[in-house]
Amino acid sequence: MQAYTTNIFIVGKKLNKEDWINQACDEYQKRLTPIMDLTTHYLKSDEELIRRVESLPKGKIFALDEHGAMYDSITFTNTLYKGYEEGGSTVHFIIGGFAGLPDVIREKHKLISLSKMTWPHQLARLLLIEQVYRATEIRKGSSYHKE
Amino acid sequence: MQAYTTNIFIVGKKLNKEDWINQACDEYQKRLTPIMDLTTHYLKSDEELIRRVESLPKGKIFALDEHGAMYDSITFTNTLYKGYEEGGSTVHFIIGGFAGLPDVIREKHKLISLSKMTWPHQLARLLLIEQVYRATEIRKGSSYHKE
Repeated sequence: MQAYTTNIFIVGKKLNKEDWINQACDEYQKRLTPIMDLTTHYLKSDEELIRRVESLPKGKIFALDEHGAMYDSITFTNTLYKGYEEGGSTVHFIIGGFAGLPDVIREKHKLISLSKMTWPHQLARLLLIEQVYRATEIRKGSSYHKE
Repeated sequence: MQAYTTNIFIVGKKLNKEDWINQACDEYQKRLTPIMDLTTHYLKSDEELIRRVESLPKGKIFALDEHGAMYDSITFTNTLYKGYEEGGSTVHFIIGGFAGLPDVIREKHKLISLSKMTWPHQLARLLLIEQVYRATEIRKGSSYHKE
């Protein structure tokens, strides 16, 4: 059993036309397997997202929002691992749909921002997974993250 | 002939193992063809980069640096188009190697930052090309960038 569980809840469909994004996410996910189980869950609507998030039995929740806190990779690493501590080794990330996060999510949970810039929805998923992978490499002290 | 020319100078090799990044960059580049000629140039070393940049006949230069100015996508669009105006329709972007930008580049040129977070070198290229594409769509007033 892996040490950590990470879920990504994203409003929208897994698109085949952006298959390179899926390939890239799969690659990082594979590299993460020894230490964590990372799963992306696609939700059809804001309502389904809200219902799903409200019924989570445990875990620290972070929602991606352009007005959220901006971290460098080291601070993100510390925030993420604090999340695993507080959340019983489980962290959930939420990525909103095209129109952004529903208000009820935005008001209730810790907001973090990957960048001031806007990215395609699916690309945000890749950027997030890469930063989670980078965080584990930073914790290991590997050469993946050299400054 | 296209209206604009955009060059990306990057220290490092075009990696085959990250083929999904090349695919994605190619896709955005293809979409940009009607309005601009966007080319990525790979340079072997900092010295080669400096020599190449110093011999550029024209064009506005922006260098990517984590300590650079952070823009949202709208402000990036305005900065980019001002760059085309000032640079005779030509803009050059510089992406440093693993150790970052050489000092002589950092001191001389306008620095911009995509995010406080660190990304793999090749992923930074993709993020940049996506924002350039997004900028052209914002100028067109298309639905690609909805807020």
